[in-house]
This record gives sequence, structure tokens and C-alpha cells, in this order.
Amino acid sequence: MTGGGGLADLAWIGCDWGGSSLRVFAVAADGRVLAVRRSDDGAGGLAPDGFEPALMALVADWLPDAPPAAIRVLICGMAGSRTGWREAAYCDPDVPLTRLAAAAVAAPALDRRIRPLILPGYARGDPPDVMRGEETQLLGLIGTEPGFAGLVCLPGTHSKWARIADDRLTASATMMTGEIFALLARQSILRQSLRPAAVLVDEAGFRAAVRQAMADPAAVLPAMFALRAADLTGGGADPAGGDEGRADPERAADRLSGLLIGLELAALPRTGWRAGEAVVVIGAPALAGRYAVALDACGIPARQVSGETLVIAGLRAAHAQMIAAGS
Amino acid sequence: MTGGGGLADLAWIGCDWGGSSLRVFAVAADGRVLAVRRSDDGAGGLAPDGFEPALMALVADWLPDAPPAAIRVLICGMAGSRTGWREAAYCDPDVPLTRLAAAAVAAPALDRRIRPLILPGYARGDPPDVMRGEETQLLGLIGTEPGFAGLVCLPGTHSKWARIADDRLTASATMMTGEIFALLARQSILRQSLRPAAVLVDEAGFRAAVRQAMADPAAVLPAMFALRAADLTGGGADPAGGDEGRADPERAADRLSGLLIGLELAALPRTGWRAGEAVVVIGAPALAGRYAVALDACGIPARQVSGETLVIAGLRAAHAQMIAAGS
Repeated sequence: MTGGGGLADLAWIGCDWGGSSLRVFAVAADGRVLAVRRSDDGAGGLAPDGFEPALMALVADWLPDAPPAAIRVLICGMAGSRTGWREAAYCDPDVPLTRLAAAAVAAPALDRRIRPLILPGYARGDPPDVMRGEETQLLGLIGTEPGFAGLVCLPGTHSKWARIADDRLTASATMMTGEIFALLARQSILRQSLRPAAVLVDEAGFRAAVRQAMADPAAVLPAMFALRAADLTGGGADPAGGDEGRADPERAADRLSGLLIGLELAALPRTGWRAGEAVVVIGAPALAGRYAVALDACGIPARQVSGETLVIAGLRAAHAQMIAAGS
Repeated sequence: MTGGGGLADLAWIGCDWGGSSLRVFAVAADGRVLAVRRSDDGAGGLAPDGFEPALMALVADWLPDAPPAAIRVLICGMAGSRTGWREAAYCDPDVPLTRLAAAAVAAPALDRRIRPLILPGYARGDPPDVMRGEETQLLGLIGTEPGFAGLVCLPGTHSKWARIADDRLTASATMMTGEIFALLARQSILRQSLRPAAVLVDEAGFRAAVRQAMADPAAVLPAMFALRAADLTGGGADPAGGDEGRADPERAADRLSGLLIGLELAALPRTGWRAGEAVVVIGAPALAGRYAVALDACGIPARQVSGETLVIAGLRAAHAQMIAAGS
């Protein structure tokens, strides 16, 4: 019984709050997603008192005028950082994903119709690593595939690699591959010789660069500048192809991407990867697909899973944990 | 005999035109440097018709009112690039440094009192590499140390490595170490946890990072983000020290610098380096000193030589080549 208004069947709201974007999901009591909205109100651009207005801008018309109880808004990601809405302290890796919701932190809200709850991330030492948001996708993975154990790659601005066993994160590492690529392609001297495309233009060149960097990580720095030198001297960026005899900026961008992802893959043994083990790649199709090609180039089997699907599954699993705990 | 005015004893002018700065040297007939001036009119910020005014702003009052012949202005560096004052096409590595001046290109000048001559750089293929400006320092090195043969490192925004034998560049490679460090330290997520200092603050941490990256280049990407994670979780950036129990942003900057320079040194075998061979490091004292420490951390003997001294020596040698050729 509600006092009127709002989205029919709404039971709770899920929220994936990244550094540069915000996605919200209206969810029914049976777990169906009733509606999805997004905005560019990422946590990186918000002061603590800016989170509630940014959320309400997307969900206000979903809310009944007077719900019998406040609607849970279950949030994962950067809203829980030190400079976010309210800090949700990192969990220790000993805490299983299946108990993540017990560590959720209530965030303050002026609108009494909502009850924002922020899920924590994980932190570990030796070597130090942190994650915020990806843990919810991992929770979604073990919710979707109970008993899952293995190595997961979540590519992005900051790629996360995680090993899961017994519903726990037994290892994790972060590589700033996407951020370094963007800085080099847009702001370094290489910008004059590169033009990143949304899709792979030169898959053969990309594969060759991945293999080169993975087999010989020390080749990466000289090979980067060689992309610029090839352009200046009229040499092709692609020694195998080069149908026009000069560098093509989209092919050069694929080469740089391949060198950096190959350097990332060279660190695979550090994640406990064993030869022949398949890697689950979680992310948006274009980027996850690029990583799947890179892994394939190195003879590593890969399986892609949609990141958005797993975020929803993870929020749903966390919500179920709360219901089960009566919180 | 001059028509009056100008700097007494001026015979010619040397000019080191970098991407972001310009240095000019007034030189006497016997090679003495009479005066030095600099400005921030780097070639990167000038249109072709902006070079002469930028030069004259520094040297106009050195020039006699009516010299009996135009004063040679011998220029090395980026003024000869495709987008510079006038393009001086790259030399092939077969051309010995001792014949570099023969490939100098005259640049147009409105003021008839000067005769600008731009020295070319070198380019090579397989793998592609280019240099503009550093070749003049290398010419200065073999002028100062006749018969020099060996491996030379010229650290900078773009570090150049060159092997010299028989007055020729037999190998070269460029690594964008300085540019990548600046992008990461100032613009990436690491900027929140780093503060670069002018001098080494944590030499032990720097050495450890150099050794780690050189021994295991694949460790570089995960170790970079670990600097941020250590700050977020309150862990020290320096596992050996850590007297305060949390990360120090200047120490973290030294760690990042060490990781990147170590990755650069991991490419040493590509330059034909043989174990035990000393490396000559050419540059400004602070940066050359940092590289000397890095090399020492890896057990590689290093000898520092002043870059400014060698630029002057190289311009002087190129001028002597012109005089000898009667050009």
C-alpha cells in the first residue's frame, strides 16, 4: 500500500556509482529489473552533499509519495570512497563475497522515502591493492555460477584482476592500462601519430604487439616511441602489412593498445594463473572483446560475461543477503 | 672590421633549439663562449615565421650594425623538424658525425646580418628511431674524446640511447620515460598520492624500484597502482622503511620514477650493451645523476658528462667542419 505515484512494483533500487557515471536500476520484489537509467554524475565530480540530488534526479519519479517503509537504495562503487557520499571502509579479503552486505554503510538522506546503503570494496596488502564496485560484479558472478573458482579480468580505465575461490577473493591486482593508454594517445607526443578507434582496426598488428610485450615486456618502452618514429620517417606502423608505405594512425593506436595490454598480460603469473587456465573477462562488449582477442593471441582461453548483467546480479545477491539477515 | 655596435669578438652564434626552450651561445673565432642566453621560445610553440623573431630577441644586440659578412648562426635541434623553421631532413646513420655539417640546411632570414644554418638529426629503421639535437652532443663527445666508442644515455622527456663506434651512430633507441612519468605524476589517479621532488628523497626506495623493474619488467604495471593502493589503505610506499606507517608522496614519486627508469634499463640489451660496459650519461646534473644512481643500482658503471658543455663542443665541431669545407 503506497500513498500513490511512483513506479508500479518497485521494491528497491540498485545503483552502480562509478567515478565518471551513475547507473540506477528499479527492481521488483521478485528481482525483475523494471527500469534502468544513467547519468554522468560520477562520484569523482560530486561533493558529499551532491550525491543525494544526483541520485534523486534519476529516481525521484520512481518513488511513491508515501511508501510504508523507506525504499532501500543499494549502492556499489565509488560513492563509498573516502571522498564519496559516506565512506564504506574496505573489507578484508577474509570476508566472503557472500557476506558483503553485512558491511554495508547507511548514507545520510534528506528525503525520508529512501534508505541509501553503500556496499564496501576490498583492500589487501603485500602488495597493496584495492577495489570498489568490481566486488559487486564478482558477487554477481558467483551468484550466477555458484561455486565458481578461477581467474577473472575486469578491464577498464583501471583493469582489475581477481582470483576467486570458496566465495572469497584470494588475490587481486590493478593495472592502469586504460588510463595510461588514454594519456599516451591523447596527450603525449604519440598523439600526433595515433588516432584511437572504437573497434580494432588492425587485429593482426594488435595481436603481434600483445605477443611482443607479453614475451618481452622490456620491449614496450622502445616500441612505443618507434610508433612515432615510423610516422616521422614514413615507415609503416605495421611491418607485416604497410600497403601504403606509411604509418596509419588507427593502426598505430591498435599497436599501442596491444603493447600495453601485452604488458598487463605479462603480469598474469602474479595472479596465480596456471598455463591453460581460462580467464573470465567481465566488461562492456567492445573492451572485453579486445581483451579476449589479446588473451587468445597468447593462447589463453577466455570467456566473456557482460558487466552490466553481473552488476545487477551482484546487487540482487547483496539485497538477498540483507533480506536474509533481516536488516 | 664592423660598422659598429655588437658584441666584441663575436665570430659566430651557436643555438640549441629544443622543443620547449632555446639557448644561444656567442662564440669567438678561437672558440671561446663569450655569452649565453636562454628563453622559453621552444620550437614546439613557434610557427615557421616565428623562429627568426625568437632568435633575434636573444641575439640582436650581439650583432654589429653592418658586419662584413653575415654572421653564421649554427642551429641544432627541433628548429629543423618538419614543422620547424625549415626542415633539415634526417641523415642516414651511414653519415659519420664528423660530416654532419655538410648536411646543414640554410633557413630563410629577413635580417641580412645573420646566416642561419640548421644541422640535421639522424633517422633509422628496423626498429624505427629518430633524433634531433642529441646528435650534436654526441658530436661534442667524440670531439672532446677523440675515438670514443661505447654506449651513451641522454636522459630527458624522451631518453635517447646511442651506441657510437668509428664516429658513427651504430644503434639508437628512444624511450618516453620522462614524458610518461610526468603524465602519470600530474594527470593520472596517482597524482593524488605522489609529489615529485627536484632531487631524490628516497634513494633506497628508488634503487629498489629500479632493480625490481629491471629484473622483472612485468612487475611495473601492478607496482604502479600499488603506490595508490598503499596510500588509500594507509600502508607505506616503502616496505623497507615506513617510519610513519603511511605513504609519503615524495617517496612514492621516487618509486614511480624508479619503476619507469628500471623498465628503460631493462631494454639495455637491445642497445648492444655488454655486461660490465660503462655507460656515459649526458645531461643536466640532477637528471643525469638520477640515471647514474639507477645504473649503479643495477651494477652498471656510469660516467656523467654535462649536456651543455657537449652541445657547445658539438656546435664548435660542426662549425669547424664548415670552415674546413670552406662553406
